[in-house]
Amino acid sequence: MTSSDAFVARLREVGESRYHHRHPFHVAMHEGTLGPAQLRHWVANRFYYQTRIPLKDALILAKSESAEFRRTWLRRIREQDGDGASDGGLELWLRLAEAVGLDRGEVIAHRRVVPGVRFACDDYVSSVARWSLLEAVASSLTECFAPDLMRARAAAWERHYPWIGPGGTAYFRARIGAARRDADEALSFVAARAITPELQEQCVAALERKTDILWHVVESIATTCEET
Amino acid sequence: MTSSDAFVARLREVGESRYHHRHPFHVAMHEGTLGPAQLRHWVANRFYYQTRIPLKDALILAKSESAEFRRTWLRRIREQDGDGASDGGLELWLRLAEAVGLDRGEVIAHRRVVPGVRFACDDYVSSVARWSLLEAVASSLTECFAPDLMRARAAAWERHYPWIGPGGTAYFRARIGAARRDADEALSFVAARAITPELQEQCVAALERKTDILWHVVESIATTCEET
Repeated sequence: MTSSDAFVARLREVGESRYHHRHPFHVAMHEGTLGPAQLRHWVANRFYYQTRIPLKDALILAKSESAEFRRTWLRRIREQDGDGASDGGLELWLRLAEAVGLDRGEVIAHRRVVPGVRFACDDYVSSVARWSLLEAVASSLTECFAPDLMRARAAAWERHYPWIGPGGTAYFRARIGAARRDADEALSFVAARAITPELQEQCVAALERKTDILWHVVESIATTCEET
Repeated sequence: MTSSDAFVARLREVGESRYHHRHPFHVAMHEGTLGPAQLRHWVANRFYYQTRIPLKDALILAKSESAEFRRTWLRRIREQDGDGASDGGLELWLRLAEAVGLDRGEVIAHRRVVPGVRFACDDYVSSVARWSLLEAVASSLTECFAPDLMRARAAAWERHYPWIGPGGTAYFRARIGAARRDADEALSFVAARAITPELQEQCVAALERKTDILWHVVESIATTCEET
């Protein structure tokens, strides 16, 4: 095993052991045992995370001296914000919110967002602002683990929560392919540039911090639900 | 005259009195009295400014909570970096560099960039990082004064410097229309949001700082030319 192979294996181990797919709230969601109020609470709170994504991606753009890198990374902002041609992730999430019975305006205004979710999501943006380009890209590698989770989630929602209206799983389905492509690009970037033990440690630490952020988001949602 | 009209008039007065079209080096450039070494020195140094533009625009994106604002502002990054469909401003500037006889690789590596140019351009990026969204957008209003300068420059270069190869004025010509559109959008944004004397003062100060940056760039170029 080369140093690079071992490094990528370590990154994957971080995801295996710390990614939020293991959180009991997500496990219960996929088993079909959450109630409507729990799902609504999750959807309304996770929207705050969604709105931070273009901001952290813009900060990543501002760290790169390469127009080629920026051209590639810019696509993430366009896919989340949408462009004239197609709706972005933010709009798909708002349709998900409506499909679970939430009021669009209330979700946009972040009225149901609990402090722990806000702290963790804001930490993501401020960490990216502080990190090197390499660390910031490494923190995005949670996307390596997203496609499997998105696929399982779309299937679980369609099976267990038939009360959810149309459009409820469009966001998850859209992310299956996009997250795979984004993750492959970011992993190539990180593997090619984290060529010293120090840089590799920084990348692992950034990815761990990101898993902490995602975990704390769902943990804060779970502990503040009306139904438990 | 309303408060808003008076504010816009003040912004225009900043441009009239402080924009770099008044700098003796630019005046000489447009009168046709610069030599090849002076033009090359200007082109190589100004490229550093060009490379800071997508970075400051990405920082501006990261300051906005509005997907609609970001969709509009994102176009500036695409137009400078280029996309699959068309070359961006950076590429047009490199063609200008080649047209005046510079080596593309040397320009890309910023080997001829003098310290004053670097300080002023880096100050633009760090100021935008520190400023509010409103101040950052206000600082971009130098674009209000760019189209006239770009039009005059393209005509002057074609008239006075026939030794410059093809593609030498494509950047200037591309900016005539784009700068007008960018300036109109930014001016509407600023006029609608700078609705207190304090906010208006902040905008004027940001625009003045930006004119200082542009002025110092050309001043540093002028004072370090081989031919004077």
